[in-house]
Amino acid sequence: MKQLYFITGNKGKLLEAQTKLGVLGIKIVQRNMGYPEIQADTLEEVAEFGVKHLAEKINDAFILEDAGLFIENLGGFPGVYSAYVYKTIGIDGVLKLLSGVDDRRAVFRSVYAYKEPGEPPLFFTGECRGCISREKKGSHGFGFDPIFIPDGENRTFGEMTPEEKNKFSHRGKALEKLYRFLEENLG
Amino acid sequence: MKQLYFITGNKGKLLEAQTKLGVLGIKIVQRNMGYPEIQADTLEEVAEFGVKHLAEKINDAFILEDAGLFIENLGGFPGVYSAYVYKTIGIDGVLKLLSGVDDRRAVFRSVYAYKEPGEPPLFFTGECRGCISREKKGSHGFGFDPIFIPDGENRTFGEMTPEEKNKFSHRGKALEKLYRFLEENLG
Repeated sequence: MKQLYFITGNKGKLLEAQTKLGVLGIKIVQRNMGYPEIQADTLEEVAEFGVKHLAEKINDAFILEDAGLFIENLGGFPGVYSAYVYKTIGIDGVLKLLSGVDDRRAVFRSVYAYKEPGEPPLFFTGECRGCISREKKGSHGFGFDPIFIPDGENRTFGEMTPEEKNKFSHRGKALEKLYRFLEENLG
Repeated sequence: MKQLYFITGNKGKLLEAQTKLGVLGIKIVQRNMGYPEIQADTLEEVAEFGVKHLAEKINDAFILEDAGLFIENLGGFPGVYSAYVYKTIGIDGVLKLLSGVDDRRAVFRSVYAYKEPGEPPLFFTGECRGCISREKKGSHGFGFDPIFIPDGENRTFGEMTPEEKNKFSHRGKALEKLYRFLEENLG
């Protein structure tokens, strides 16, 4: 396989994947087509449903990615609905929900789904544990980056350059697993 | 048509529909099968996707219903994700998000989808405008009922009997529209 479709509208994710998987000689081609994201408890369920839907339309190998922020004290909220929650109550809403709360543990999770025609989909997950800061800091990244401090750091993702963030990144870890799989199986 | 499937796991909704539509001589039969609920901005989109999915499996007339609470000051949050938000941050979370907020306007919305084999689905919507109370009151109903005060009242849904609530209810209004449609078209 020399080509792999990436079903995404996110140029940042695309670039990350192209940089990482390009090393293997794989050309990552963006296909910006929507797919239904279901309401579910886990990213894997959302990804699996999306893959099933897309596999009826695409007869080539493809990947997709979904991610979310899971806050322990809020029962995993906003989880798979992170994009929606960001769009509605936003960072300020999440900080308000955690005002007066000392347990600020949170996990960023990412899942890459990989699908080849005629094969069941494979999932590669990555996570980054950390905590929610008391106030927003930094302007790098996107989404909840300005309030997420990864374990072992005292800066938020919003205060880090993309290179610094990638060392910790949930998506980077998931992508690394996909990379290793492709390296072993397509060599 | 003498029989109509209601795709729901909710006995309360089933009873409401049976009571109302039974008058027309229609037997409402529960089918407790799940269907995918997509992430979307409107209840109609969620219902339409569910109907499409179910229509591939059910070759009889059926209905389904979806509802949500849309809070103005929170950009419509929790909206179509009301069940998930109730399960995670709950009533206390919503009250916390609105602490210090004077604009407490909110709308409960409901949509009934009606599908006959070979026909496009029809949607019947109902809404109930009101506001979010400062604290939870009452133990009737379910979900966000204890913090929702309908316009023209000073009690929450949680403080009303089912009969009192039904006078205002978003779902009752949607069901009324479905009732009228069935009355005119199946007479």
